[in-house]
Amino acid sequence: MLYVVGLGPGSKAMMTQEAREVIEQTKTIVGYATYVRLIEDMIEGKELVVTGMRGEIDRCKKALEIAQTGKDVAIISSGDAGVYGMAGLIMDLASKQDAKVEIKVIPGVTASIAAAAHLGAPLMNDFCHISLSDLMTPWEVIEKRLHAAAAADFVICLYNPRSKGRPHHLRKALDIISQYKAGTTVVGIGKDVARPKEIDEITTIDDLDETMVNMTSIVIVGNKETYVHDGRMITPRGYQL
Amino acid sequence: MLYVVGLGPGSKAMMTQEAREVIEQTKTIVGYATYVRLIEDMIEGKELVVTGMRGEIDRCKKALEIAQTGKDVAIISSGDAGVYGMAGLIMDLASKQDAKVEIKVIPGVTASIAAAAHLGAPLMNDFCHISLSDLMTPWEVIEKRLHAAAAADFVICLYNPRSKGRPHHLRKALDIISQYKAGTTVVGIGKDVARPKEIDEITTIDDLDETMVNMTSIVIVGNKETYVHDGRMITPRGYQL
Repeated sequence: MLYVVGLGPGSKAMMTQEAREVIEQTKTIVGYATYVRLIEDMIEGKELVVTGMRGEIDRCKKALEIAQTGKDVAIISSGDAGVYGMAGLIMDLASKQDAKVEIKVIPGVTASIAAAAHLGAPLMNDFCHISLSDLMTPWEVIEKRLHAAAAADFVICLYNPRSKGRPHHLRKALDIISQYKAGTTVVGIGKDVARPKEIDEITTIDDLDETMVNMTSIVIVGNKETYVHDGRMITPRGYQL
Repeated sequence: MLYVVGLGPGSKAMMTQEAREVIEQTKTIVGYATYVRLIEDMIEGKELVVTGMRGEIDRCKKALEIAQTGKDVAIISSGDAGVYGMAGLIMDLASKQDAKVEIKVIPGVTASIAAAAHLGAPLMNDFCHISLSDLMTPWEVIEKRLHAAAAADFVICLYNPRSKGRPHHLRKALDIISQYKAGTTVVGIGKDVARPKEIDEITTIDDLDETMVNMTSIVIVGNKETYVHDGRMITPRGYQL
């Protein structure tokens, strides 16, 4: 069995019981070094296959190879493995190779959900997820989705909002969103959520300081009803109170 | 402290450690009867405030009242309390009453993430959540969002897709989506995910049998690249394999 395990955003507190049990019971663990460190006290005595950043394809191929020898293996992701994670790549590879491997995805708390919980309740009405990384998706497609989501006043969760290689994507995205949403629209930033250096900040489209945003951040842009009270970012559900 | 706890979709396996600990340590639990049953073996000896369906406002008011007496209280939701759940309503009420209550949201695995894990890996590219319940959001706004999301080829997770009171919303939504996506587009249905009667089905927009969909179902409509292999619904991330 090949398990694809979402660890949640960082702390073990946000890991599901199922994820914990699978890691405890599986002798071979495959993962990116940073993720393996998140569970270092759970992996003593296990066979580890640790790869570097951008080694996604290699990592998934190795996990598939091991599973095909008949061993149980768990490949780990932070957040949820099915949201821009390893689950799809594993299945894509298995499908291309026509590999007969049993694959089980163990869901986890994805970054937007965790950040939302710590910022308040921004995801109470329709929302979408857009990754600003154009490594896999052409930038024109990303722009098209930003236009569509902003025009229909979705709450927008931006994944991979900004990195050294893509320092201007967040500002470009906010410029597009600003064509439809007011500059005073509430924006929440969750940085390193559920990790020791967590920073949560609530600001607006106009006031956002993009230099505080990096690859371990999630940016949540509210809808036109989103407001701030007592330091919480709240999107009303629409109840008559 | 008022905890707003997401239990995950149903089974305890998908509950986070933090959610479990908060429920174990909090003496007063507020919730809708069906959710309380999900954790019935964890609540022996606790003070329970159980309300019926559509009692959301009462339930949240009661939890706020109890918290204001200085007691710790946990209000529970299935899935994640921040996704169309109780977290926003609690904060909305606290804000309207200017109640000084510490509120902590404990995130959980939301239904779309759990259903996706059991269907395959449909959420590997940009996706959105749209609730088809027009109790809180005017149907015209829902239609606008369906048009926008389908035109920009988002993967679309439909929450509250169909109920006795709204038997035709799902078909209406699929008719709108069909103006942009082919009838052969892959659709996954997760019904009672992580509960004993779970049914997962993969079909297409044209072939979907809406009578199998109810309020405890999530419907995930793929993008134009989503495919099926070996019984799994897969949206490729875009890696060159």
